[in-house]
Amino acid sequence: MPGAVVHKLTLEQIVSRLGGELVGNPQTAVARIRPIASAGSDDITFLSQPRLHAQLARTAAAAVILPETLKGELPASGNAIYTADPYLYYARLSQWLWQLGQPPFEPGRHPLAHIDPAARVSAQARIDAFAVIEAGAEIGEGVHIGAGCHVGRGALIGAHSVLHPRSVVGWGCRLGARCVLQPGAVVGSDGFGYARDATGAGVKIAQVGVAVLGDDVEVGANSTIDRGALDNTEIGTGVKIDNLVQIAHNVRIGAHTALAGCVGVSGSAQIGAYCFIGGGVGIAGHLRIADGVVIGGMSLVSRSVLQPGMYTGAFPLDTHANWERNAATLRQLYQLRERLRALERQLDSVKTPPSP
Amino acid sequence: MPGAVVHKLTLEQIVSRLGGELVGNPQTAVARIRPIASAGSDDITFLSQPRLHAQLARTAAAAVILPETLKGELPASGNAIYTADPYLYYARLSQWLWQLGQPPFEPGRHPLAHIDPAARVSAQARIDAFAVIEAGAEIGEGVHIGAGCHVGRGALIGAHSVLHPRSVVGWGCRLGARCVLQPGAVVGSDGFGYARDATGAGVKIAQVGVAVLGDDVEVGANSTIDRGALDNTEIGTGVKIDNLVQIAHNVRIGAHTALAGCVGVSGSAQIGAYCFIGGGVGIAGHLRIADGVVIGGMSLVSRSVLQPGMYTGAFPLDTHANWERNAATLRQLYQLRERLRALERQLDSVKTPPSP
Amino acid sequence: MPGAVVHKLTLEQIVSRLGGELVGNPQTAVARIRPIASAGSDDITFLSQPRLHAQLARTAAAAVILPETLKGELPASGNAIYTADPYLYYARLSQWLWQLGQPPFEPGRHPLAHIDPAARVSAQARIDAFAVIEAGAEIGEGVHIGAGCHVGRGALIGAHSVLHPRSVVGWGCRLGARCVLQPGAVVGSDGFGYARDATGAGVKIAQVGVAVLGDDVEVGANSTIDRGALDNTEIGTGVKIDNLVQIAHNVRIGAHTALAGCVGVSGSAQIGAYCFIGGGVGIAGHLRIADGVVIGGMSLVSRSVLQPGMYTGAFPLDTHANWERNAATLRQLYQLRERLRALERQLDSVKTPPSP
Repeated sequence: MPGAVVHKLTLEQIVSRLGGELVGNPQTAVARIRPIASAGSDDITFLSQPRLHAQLARTAAAAVILPETLKGELPASGNAIYTADPYLYYARLSQWLWQLGQPPFEPGRHPLAHIDPAARVSAQARIDAFAVIEAGAEIGEGVHIGAGCHVGRGALIGAHSVLHPRSVVGWGCRLGARCVLQPGAVVGSDGFGYARDATGAGVKIAQVGVAVLGDDVEVGANSTIDRGALDNTEIGTGVKIDNLVQIAHNVRIGAHTALAGCVGVSGSAQIGAYCFIGGGVGIAGHLRIADGVVIGGMSLVSRSVLQPGMYTGAFPLDTHANWERNAATLRQLYQLRERLRALERQLDSVKTPPSP
Repeated sequence: MPGAVVHKLTLEQIVSRLGGELVGNPQTAVARIRPIASAGSDDITFLSQPRLHAQLARTAAAAVILPETLKGELPASGNAIYTADPYLYYARLSQWLWQLGQPPFEPGRHPLAHIDPAARVSAQARIDAFAVIEAGAEIGEGVHIGAGCHVGRGALIGAHSVLHPRSVVGWGCRLGARCVLQPGAVVGSDGFGYARDATGAGVKIAQVGVAVLGDDVEVGANSTIDRGALDNTEIGTGVKIDNLVQIAHNVRIGAHTALAGCVGVSGSAQIGAYCFIGGGVGIAGHLRIADGVVIGGMSLVSRSVLQPGMYTGAFPLDTHANWERNAATLRQLYQLRERLRALERQLDSVKTPPSP
Repeated sequence: MPGAVVHKLTLEQIVSRLGGELVGNPQTAVARIRPIASAGSDDITFLSQPRLHAQLARTAAAAVILPETLKGELPASGNAIYTADPYLYYARLSQWLWQLGQPPFEPGRHPLAHIDPAARVSAQARIDAFAVIEAGAEIGEGVHIGAGCHVGRGALIGAHSVLHPRSVVGWGCRLGARCVLQPGAVVGSDGFGYARDATGAGVKIAQVGVAVLGDDVEVGANSTIDRGALDNTEIGTGVKIDNLVQIAHNVRIGAHTALAGCVGVSGSAQIGAYCFIGGGVGIAGHLRIADGVVIGGMSLVSRSVLQPGMYTGAFPLDTHANWERNAATLRQLYQLRERLRALERQLDSVKTPPSP
């Protein structure tokens, strides 16, 4: 940003906090992380993908984070940090550098925020303009409630959580520590529950459960998590949810599972821990997905998946002309199979003529 | 919620308002509805799914709502209400209990709401903080406009509708009575309409129609309903729309149809009444779906569906390895069919050798 | 809208600004554009689809915009404007008529907006109630920031852009001239980037790139565009994005490409210029789509598409019963192919018996 003060870290400072083995000049200082191809003399970069190995010799970076398997290799600058997982090292360093560039966290309540007198807001929390905190809500220490956010009656926001602008937490919902809601995220909307009366009209079922998020959960921009109908919707510790994801009522998601953008999870589905749900996937209701399952993008999960592993179900892309021919045949696939079976039988009888 | 006053209803009160046949102690009082497995002595539960029948004997619930087909069966508490449709009964009772637990509706205008002097707001409506009501808008009796909502110029909000926080109704759009917008819902965004000029650049078509919602329509969190281009977008009475659903311009949806999460409906599509559109379904533009159609999750409807019934089109999930082999073959399905046809012809000629 | 003043244009005024050849009475005045079937004596209509040709003789419109190929044909009113592209003409006229009906643009700052003293806001911009403009942000001339919008630190909003209510532009992001954000759109949310630590927990990667939109970009309601991780997310000039579209970090989209509703684009994908991406399409990460590519609705693009043309991959809709049979067979497609191959071999040997 124009005029922003640039903060630098020496390689010595970096390894003394984040570990790794430093080769080169400990006093070399870096201000930013940049991709290996565009890094310059103020930058540190990292090499985590073997296909970029050839760029190591050419990079102008002041230093490179390298995997231990490349110990001994050095960029032109002569500065390298060797570590087991350069990508993880990059993640941690990126947070640190980011933090340095931020204005200091200033607790306080903006005069144009609307905070109910019966809300309990930590003196160490920050509430921005046009935010609403309703009665009975509790806002923990170090929490940042962004501009225009809404925290409903009796909701709990755990310490050091960040609600980016215009995000919403409904009544009674609970966020653990260090949760992040991206702009427009909604936690605790009503689940989609209706009975049908004799005329076929929908009769709303009051949604009286809440949504409970563990620690370190991140919810993407404009994603939605419904409250439970009777029981709660439960999102485990460390779950990461991308943008425009819909989580229906009574869903349960295990710890450290990640859901990519545009996923939809139907009511009462249970997803295990350490799963990865690809973008655009649909998960039907009332089923169970085991721990450690990976679902390929745009697949529909219509039955339980009880074994870990990778699963996919998506139509392969083709030129429209080819697709059209194959799709037409696909509608008769069952008949094709019948015809094949018939042929097999006939051929059998041709080869083995009835004994005379 | 901590400290909330608990309201109880006696079984006598319940049946006198909602009907059903009571067996047991009319003075037994219940505070909540709970699932049959976890209900306790303050709770009423219901049995609508035969697979849960075995739990009837074990439930600790104070009373159970049972189907008339089970007349004579009783839980340990000895209290039962028999009714034709326990799930519908549960829906109605859930609303009643919910209402009891709510703070009384207090009409009024929050001093930090921005209401144009040329808006007509019922004295019996409630407008929360940071809401905006523009000139010419009409807000009916008993309406609740949540915090941070936006009601555009000349929009009409029918009696007893609820706009949850941060929802938006664009200029000129009209909501019937008792509509509900979940947080972040948008009614009346511009439709996606462009002409292309000679260079291929898009030239916006002013979207001058509006969106009109009938009575008792519910729109899910962060769902979007576009205004019409020239004519209107029309959502029928009792239509229920889940979260993250997109309804394009000039769409028409018949009464009491339900659309599950993540559905996308393209421009000028017409969907009949009493349909159910499964989660993640895509509906192409300018087509027609008859009344009483059910579309399975994640299907693409690319042509009109003129007969009621259930329709599906989704790739079945498989292990990634199997999927990969099948998908590769699928791209050649047309050739497979040709080869099968060739085989059939050849086998025919083998079986019937040309007459000499 | 009730009470709105109606503005009229004469046909002479129209052709003198927008071109075209006028036949009929130049003083005929029109107030609205209406579809050919419902247009009345105050209305102008257009004929761009040959299938509506029969309606030309019956329309009650005061004038009709006709393709040059129909020169000589006239509606009952006797008034026609002939032009190469009636649909484009309609688009331009619709904008003009729309503009006439709008209240004049009034620059200014609503007293309930929160504008940081260190933001640079053009005196010719308009900032509505409950909007937030943070330090270092620059708001160009003629910009309209709607109610409840949020413009983050150091963000730039180009001249004559319109942010509809409740839209968000994150810190450092840049919009060109004449951009439009529909309600609830989010530009500059954090990308979905995490490393995994040794326990499998996600470690957030600070997202320090921004999102950069060219001129004349439109972003639909509740759509989301992530900022870049290290480099930027780049949306080209004239790109049109429909509602509920998700654009991940580091995506690049070429000029004048259109993305229909519910599309999801994964990280670092590159989409060319003048493409059309159909509704509900998913685009995998780190791939490239050439200029001039059309992707059919609900397709998954899992590999690069390097040639212009139309591509599709979506399961054809069928009755559920048929779909179920075909889907079951589809899971064994590879075996079907093997059996077919075996049959071909056997038939070959039947036809050509081993020489004695």
